[in-house]
Amino acid sequence: MGKKIDVTELILRDAHQSLTATRISLEDMAAACAEIDKAGYWSVECWGGATFDACIRFLNEDPWERLRNFRKLMPNSRLQMLLRGQNLLGYRHYEDTVVDRFVEKAAENGIDVFRIFDALNDIRNLQRAVTAVRRTGKHAQGAICYTISPLHTIDGFVEVARKLVDLGCDSICIKDMAALLKPQPAYDLVKAIKAECGKSVRVQVHVHATTGVTMVSLMKAIEAGADGVDTAVSALSLGPGHNPTESLVEMLDGTGYETSLDRKRLLKIKRHFNNVRARYKEFLSNITGVDTEIFQSQIPGGMLSNMENQLKQQKAADKMDAVLAEVPKVREDAGYPPLVTPTSQIVGTQAVFNVLMGRYKVMTGEFADLMLGYYGETIGPRKKEVIDQAVKQTGKPLITCRPADLLKPEWQELREAALALPGCNGSDEDVLTAAMFPHVASKFFSTRAEGPKNLGTDPEQAAPPAQEAGKGPSPVRTPITYDVRFGGNTHRITITPA
Amino acid sequence: MGKKIDVTELILRDAHQSLTATRISLEDMAAACAEIDKAGYWSVECWGGATFDACIRFLNEDPWERLRNFRKLMPNSRLQMLLRGQNLLGYRHYEDTVVDRFVEKAAENGIDVFRIFDALNDIRNLQRAVTAVRRTGKHAQGAICYTISPLHTIDGFVEVARKLVDLGCDSICIKDMAALLKPQPAYDLVKAIKAECGKSVRVQVHVHATTGVTMVSLMKAIEAGADGVDTAVSALSLGPGHNPTESLVEMLDGTGYETSLDRKRLLKIKRHFNNVRARYKEFLSNITGVDTEIFQSQIPGGMLSNMENQLKQQKAADKMDAVLAEVPKVREDAGYPPLVTPTSQIVGTQAVFNVLMGRYKVMTGEFADLMLGYYGETIGPRKKEVIDQAVKQTGKPLITCRPADLLKPEWQELREAALALPGCNGSDEDVLTAAMFPHVASKFFSTRAEGPKNLGTDPEQAAPPAQEAGKGPSPVRTPITYDVRFGGNTHRITITPA
Repeated sequence: MGKKIDVTELILRDAHQSLTATRISLEDMAAACAEIDKAGYWSVECWGGATFDACIRFLNEDPWERLRNFRKLMPNSRLQMLLRGQNLLGYRHYEDTVVDRFVEKAAENGIDVFRIFDALNDIRNLQRAVTAVRRTGKHAQGAICYTISPLHTIDGFVEVARKLVDLGCDSICIKDMAALLKPQPAYDLVKAIKAECGKSVRVQVHVHATTGVTMVSLMKAIEAGADGVDTAVSALSLGPGHNPTESLVEMLDGTGYETSLDRKRLLKIKRHFNNVRARYKEFLSNITGVDTEIFQSQIPGGMLSNMENQLKQQKAADKMDAVLAEVPKVREDAGYPPLVTPTSQIVGTQAVFNVLMGRYKVMTGEFADLMLGYYGETIGPRKKEVIDQAVKQTGKPLITCRPADLLKPEWQELREAALALPGCNGSDEDVLTAAMFPHVASKFFSTRAEGPKNLGTDPEQAAPPAQEAGKGPSPVRTPITYDVRFGGNTHRITITPA
Repeated sequence: MGKKIDVTELILRDAHQSLTATRISLEDMAAACAEIDKAGYWSVECWGGATFDACIRFLNEDPWERLRNFRKLMPNSRLQMLLRGQNLLGYRHYEDTVVDRFVEKAAENGIDVFRIFDALNDIRNLQRAVTAVRRTGKHAQGAICYTISPLHTIDGFVEVARKLVDLGCDSICIKDMAALLKPQPAYDLVKAIKAECGKSVRVQVHVHATTGVTMVSLMKAIEAGADGVDTAVSALSLGPGHNPTESLVEMLDGTGYETSLDRKRLLKIKRHFNNVRARYKEFLSNITGVDTEIFQSQIPGGMLSNMENQLKQQKAADKMDAVLAEVPKVREDAGYPPLVTPTSQIVGTQAVFNVLMGRYKVMTGEFADLMLGYYGETIGPRKKEVIDQAVKQTGKPLITCRPADLLKPEWQELREAALALPGCNGSDEDVLTAAMFPHVASKFFSTRAEGPKNLGTDPEQAAPPAQEAGKGPSPVRTPITYDVRFGGNTHRITITPA
């Protein structure tokens, strides 16, 4: 018997977010949940910002209802979510009592494991959420955003890990969104965290597959003592997604490490999502291979295409080389933030502005906020002249406190705003939905009663997965209502448990 | 400075064979050759059975001329070919003097490294070719076909390696066509070969990417002392192809191992083949993900679809499960041959026959030959009753000698047959072409004068690579004639060096 390696399955959240633009409806996931529930995972990631947003923006599906359904469909699993610290699932900082309320409600509706991160690795932005999770008795996992820059070192990351443990996190996650974590740093980082924080501190490694090196990084992390890794069943893996779960199982054969995963169940899950994948071809990422250019450019693929689009809109596509050269300068001036959402967009857009209009002649509001400390502390010092320029352009002061300390209690206000929206059901969940996505929620509340949409389309030649799923016992345990478009008409169909 | 790991680039042979049905014309490879030549590879694989066959079958391109062009385009590189032992590039055993002649001509036209293998790992089928290569002074690399079965063990493979070294091979290749080589066996096998044969014996590892574990296997093989590995530039990598060259370079960062490869040149090669790939969309493998089912089924993907087709043609698609259960039995009865070309087809077809007509009631000629020893010795004993059945059905005796020992000198006969073909130029090269692919060569000789065809088609929106190539200095150093179809007419165009 080898050492057990825990696996977190990503196919219900990050995998389809990375590969099918987060468009997969609960309907297309439900039939696989019974197998996922019994396959032997440590946890099942199934909730986060983009899935929440896509539910109300594209799928007319209540994300809280989705969560409750997952809870019923996978009674034996630890359900996991990704939480952006003080941002929750939205795009600004929320006041502390809103953070508390969100965590309570998420736990109540079914979340067992909260993976919490901040784009700048500013611990103060995670503090309140971690405390809130601990109060619910659920698992608080503190995540470190991995990046590379002249200032990011193994020692620096270990210091972040130390702080997360001191904060009371139940485990540490190394979160590598851009597939930058190479095998040797993966080994060194896990070893160093274990040495500094103690062997009993659980370390989980989350990597994407984009650069083609991270399956090896998982192996080296495991050799260094990592307790768990994140993967996605092969049907939705690789490219900008993650390493395949089945390959992880096979990779460990004979190494002295092993997972608890059941190969036969993984095969069933794969076959289900192969059919689902075929139905979401329209949304499928067209990147299937690897891209290692990021190691030299520091610029993630998504950020690159954003900047290209911005330049095209300004009829300045010929300026791309200048923008590519500007990005590292802007990043340096901003104190080397990791280039992830939202900092990648903030830095990228400012680089475009600098090239088109002169360096820092015009600042975006977001970039000014980043320079002035409103996103939190950066690892490196930010450039004095650019801070002064930001103060001048915005009239806002530089801050050094925890950004959320400046916020006044806002729950009552958020509650009143939500209740004023037609279709709001008055629950705390609805208030939170409206608080995080005010515009989208307003439209969603008014159309919610029409029930979820399924954006998948049946490919020619292939059997629709709905039929396939129908062969086995129905995994649906609560009534679910769907709109089915057929022959030009829309039919309302409600599925109730047998 | 870390230990140098040698890299063999596969993009000009196995990569496009695995991913674009071997259809890429020399025209679409030529512009990248200058960069490949200077990128720092140990060798460049560019010739083999399928590329030879596709040249004359689909591209109206003389494969010997292609080789001579590669030689001129990459004057600083070791050019490498894959040779199927006594089969050369064809589908039967050839008599020894034909083997000698082929090796001489291949060396003369540009090959520096001959990778030689036999589907059954029967050393006697490699012997003559290895001796012939050594006589030319070129590099003879003996390859071990890696497979898994109850009889295949690390010790057994090491014994094959030992025999290859004794035969005079300059290096050993572990050849894993089906991506079955997991990390731990990769480590153990390389370690054991080095221990048995001596550290100075060069070990190269060739793996495909199909199962998603083999990038890790390359890392472990390197840690165990492997001297070189095979990869393909990312534009034509993964799926049934190979691990990406650029990812290998990045993977080794900080590990104490490094390649000599130039990242900037790799990027140029990648960009070139990204354009080329877009032009061969029609032929592109639709497998982009990973498949680990082979670890349980023992059945490679290509073999699976072959059997499915055979059953469909017989209107017996419902028998697939029975056939899947039959394959391991047939493989066992046949002494556990590795399931690679041609044994995978031979075993698969016989399994289909057994299910449709009763076990061994009807044998294919090829399966009977396999049972009777005409392909060579298998690792395990073959089943007595089935051998008797094969004798009865074919009237041929069981043999235990080296199969080629039964062949009479055939060069004169082959020469006369070739010279009788219209369009044969009388060279030894033409005689060898006709000897290996008699039917296809006959047609090719008669149309050769029309010049090569390019089966690529320009994708909408993307600039044709030919134009892209035209921007830099022309890498063409000998006149090349192409047929260009434009506006319904075919134009003969000859490119001469500037």
